[in-house]
Amino acid sequence: MSFLLNAWYVAAFAHEVRVDAPLARTLLGRPVVLYRDASQRAIVLDDRCAHRFAPLSKGRIVDGALECPYHGLRFGESGQCVHNPHGDGRVPSGAKVRTYPAIERHGAVWFWAGDPQRADASLLPSFPFVDPATTYMHDGYLLTRAHYQLSADNLLDLSHFQFLHPDTLGSEAIARGEVQSGSLGDTVWVRRVAHDEVLPPFVADGFGIPPGMRVDRWMDVRWTPPGLLSIMVGVTPAGMPREAGLIAPSAHWLTPETDRTTHYFFAFGLPREMGERGRELVRYAVDGLMKPFEQEDLPMLEAQQRNLGDSDFWALQPALLPLDAGAIRARRVMERLIAEERAANAAQEPVGDSSARGEAVTGTVSVDSLRRSSCEAA
Amino acid sequence: MSFLLNAWYVAAFAHEVRVDAPLARTLLGRPVVLYRDASQRAIVLDDRCAHRFAPLSKGRIVDGALECPYHGLRFGESGQCVHNPHGDGRVPSGAKVRTYPAIERHGAVWFWAGDPQRADASLLPSFPFVDPATTYMHDGYLLTRAHYQLSADNLLDLSHFQFLHPDTLGSEAIARGEVQSGSLGDTVWVRRVAHDEVLPPFVADGFGIPPGMRVDRWMDVRWTPPGLLSIMVGVTPAGMPREAGLIAPSAHWLTPETDRTTHYFFAFGLPREMGERGRELVRYAVDGLMKPFEQEDLPMLEAQQRNLGDSDFWALQPALLPLDAGAIRARRVMERLIAEERAANAAQEPVGDSSARGEAVTGTVSVDSLRRSSCEAA
Amino acid sequence: MSFLLNAWYVAAFAHEVRVDAPLARTLLGRPVVLYRDASQRAIVLDDRCAHRFAPLSKGRIVDGALECPYHGLRFGESGQCVHNPHGDGRVPSGAKVRTYPAIERHGAVWFWAGDPQRADASLLPSFPFVDPATTYMHDGYLLTRAHYQLSADNLLDLSHFQFLHPDTLGSEAIARGEVQSGSLGDTVWVRRVAHDEVLPPFVADGFGIPPGMRVDRWMDVRWTPPGLLSIMVGVTPAGMPREAGLIAPSAHWLTPETDRTTHYFFAFGLPREMGERGRELVRYAVDGLMKPFEQEDLPMLEAQQRNLGDSDFWALQPALLPLDAGAIRARRVMERLIAEERAANAAQEPVGDSSARGEAVTGTVSVDSLRRSSCEAA
Repeated sequence: MSFLLNAWYVAAFAHEVRVDAPLARTLLGRPVVLYRDASQRAIVLDDRCAHRFAPLSKGRIVDGALECPYHGLRFGESGQCVHNPHGDGRVPSGAKVRTYPAIERHGAVWFWAGDPQRADASLLPSFPFVDPATTYMHDGYLLTRAHYQLSADNLLDLSHFQFLHPDTLGSEAIARGEVQSGSLGDTVWVRRVAHDEVLPPFVADGFGIPPGMRVDRWMDVRWTPPGLLSIMVGVTPAGMPREAGLIAPSAHWLTPETDRTTHYFFAFGLPREMGERGRELVRYAVDGLMKPFEQEDLPMLEAQQRNLGDSDFWALQPALLPLDAGAIRARRVMERLIAEERAANAAQEPVGDSSARGEAVTGTVSVDSLRRSSCEAA
Repeated sequence: MSFLLNAWYVAAFAHEVRVDAPLARTLLGRPVVLYRDASQRAIVLDDRCAHRFAPLSKGRIVDGALECPYHGLRFGESGQCVHNPHGDGRVPSGAKVRTYPAIERHGAVWFWAGDPQRADASLLPSFPFVDPATTYMHDGYLLTRAHYQLSADNLLDLSHFQFLHPDTLGSEAIARGEVQSGSLGDTVWVRRVAHDEVLPPFVADGFGIPPGMRVDRWMDVRWTPPGLLSIMVGVTPAGMPREAGLIAPSAHWLTPETDRTTHYFFAFGLPREMGERGRELVRYAVDGLMKPFEQEDLPMLEAQQRNLGDSDFWALQPALLPLDAGAIRARRVMERLIAEERAANAAQEPVGDSSARGEAVTGTVSVDSLRRSSCEAA
Repeated sequence: MSFLLNAWYVAAFAHEVRVDAPLARTLLGRPVVLYRDASQRAIVLDDRCAHRFAPLSKGRIVDGALECPYHGLRFGESGQCVHNPHGDGRVPSGAKVRTYPAIERHGAVWFWAGDPQRADASLLPSFPFVDPATTYMHDGYLLTRAHYQLSADNLLDLSHFQFLHPDTLGSEAIARGEVQSGSLGDTVWVRRVAHDEVLPPFVADGFGIPPGMRVDRWMDVRWTPPGLLSIMVGVTPAGMPREAGLIAPSAHWLTPETDRTTHYFFAFGLPREMGERGRELVRYAVDGLMKPFEQEDLPMLEAQQRNLGDSDFWALQPALLPLDAGAIRARRVMERLIAEERAANAAQEPVGDSSARGEAVTGTVSVDSLRRSSCEAA
């Protein structure tokens, strides 16, 4: 398994991580345990006791430390054993569990899998529409039995709406639409517009569009490494400027569980200024998407993975279409970053050039402006 | 997995392959999709879209072409993409799926896994008793979780009737019977006669033999590569010549799904001149055999496979008995053909000597004479 | 899989091995079949017919020989084919199945996986408290999905009672107790005493201790290779000498099924002189322990195995605590014995020095004295 290690990944939604019960999860092939210490801070540790490899996630949280369920050793937020109940109670200095840098943002707990010295919170891209303090957010989760890059391909090329989701998201107009893509630093963007479209009922109802009304629908996708996407979908009466329409912003965060399975975290958010209508809409979006995601996307991604097997993606010589441009750019960015990290590790030097990646993030499409138009429309 | 590639294998019974719904099946370790085009011709393609590896078998057949369920590309019988619904609709020349030569014969669709230039229909052995135009045929299918050669062993040595199928097919007389075997080119034959036998009720009823009547039962097995067998079972009152008896001809076609699992296709056929009685008898035979095949042969074959594991058959040093002669001959033919094919591929030259294999097939036991005696008896 | 081969392992409890039905079991990664011949002697054979690898365990026992269910060959206690029902009935000399030396002792059938010349019954350690002739014994069995050495660790360090079995076996006093360990030859012993303890009800009831009474509990564990343990648990009123108390002796025998799964055989025995009370107590102990063993130990051992994965135990750099001393000694003995056996096999010379191992066994803690105190207490 070769993952990009010096990067922020979502480990869990914030509400999953508790002060009274540990959470077990495999991230990048590593079993980890998440919990909150006495100060409510999220802690991420290897889920393997330093003594006899018992899973700490089956233990209890006692005085803000995690107690091993087998022999009762306790480990603190630094990973060091802080309590040995046996004999004279001395703690061997080697009794230490690996910890991972973690931060809490956008309603999620993020963890850094690589060199802790490089875990810079400013590298995290911005998702202002999912902020528990200012927005209503609603989230969904699916375990996808496919490589995370296949999920990224799926999200970066929404032309599949027409064929895979004909009843909920797609229409005949999508294939006829315009697509543009590009990149700025390590960020990739794809913009798609379907003109003069009759929306499927699920989308029309969400945007408050009367049945049969002709609209323009635009779908802006932003991808940043290692698999962090925002999708802005907007609808206007056909021919009207974007500013006239409503917008539905969503975040899509892909974290490899293993090299063949992916945690798919997604969330919709709308400004609290929208009141109850905003709260209803984010629930409507997430609840309504679970069925096509689970019954249409997941089986497709898993079937792709089966067909891919142990092969490298490129070894199967995929035919390239213009609509693939964005997804291919994202794959190329990941391949370069992983190769750079490997080379740096091989040279035993610090990894990559984090300032370059920081730039990439600040160079993305401004979400604030989109959000403003959403507020105006509401 | 080392299979003989330049050979005809059954891919499906003809009635499984449809003009309105694709059929997914793994053959020789390859996921393929089967369907019929507008002219009812059976098509066999890799079940993997040239674009993003989606399974075409989950798609629709539109205008005789197979439409990918993910992005809507359509592929024709040559494997070439014939329709791209996106953007300007241009089709990249590399958008091509591998196709396999296929023919329809004996109520089955046959496919050729190797060099298409060598796919010569005349190499197919003759099974005249299963011909939808002239015979009533009834077929059965089982997936066997064992190497196809273990199934061939089973069919080439019917001495197991007495021990594995004591209630339906076997009797004490079988072990006492005479067995002869030999080969002609690549064809192997085994002839077994049980003399002065009281048949088990299932067999006696099928042949119309009164309970307790003493008979001679003969069982002629013909095997041709890669695993195509016919079995002619005949019964006469004890001591009478073969011509005095009835005959039940059946075909048994083994196609590797993987190197540890086998598609077992079998069919009984009787001449349409027999009328309703012939139609009833082929159903009686297939329906009655499903239970011993499924509940007795399958568990045995799977247990053998478990005991074989990753070992080569010969590495386990099997004890050889006289009754094994036919099965061993067939194994030796397959080993030679696979070695020849590998050597030829290694030399980058055309594979094997197909004319020699053609001879082998024409040199087999004449089935027509058997069939004639069946007609006379009916 | 690297197991110690020149050693006695429990293959089955004696009551599992029958004269009328074969028993299939995988031991040290080998599928074997156990049955009793006409003289009631337990026979252990490879569960793989010499002819076509059929599982003999699916066959019948006929005249004290095992009949293959596929073609009816029969094999005797030497593993030689003794009957061929086919043709002229001649038996090929190569038709022979591997057999393993077996002895019956302590209510169990033991088998020797290595060089039959070295299968010396005197190497078997003594478990006098489980002897069908003189004791009431009751036994239990669990399949543990973990390496057998993880089970040995578990039994050699009973400090886990307090954390893993708080409701049935543990108490707060255990961690405070004294532990000593040592070895004599290849035998390892661990002695633990919990002073001034209030027993959990399951233990108190078994020993007839009134609720709330303060006691001393001592737990003596003896381990001999490859994974044969006895555990003597005794209870006395706090401060009284050992001789004043009752004792519950038990045997714990670990046989690898594979390198990741273990047959865990255990048995309690008490002298028949105790009468009905002894019979009741051994049942009480085994029945009462099944729940904590199955619901607490097994999931823990399996979780450890998952965390261990393909790693060597030492590669994960386990932190060592004083309470691990016994388990580590046992691991070191096994590592040395396996290395010696491998070196000897590599040199194509006889394996190890069995006289040294014989000494180790005779040098163990005397169980007879423990048993005497048990009798006196009863």
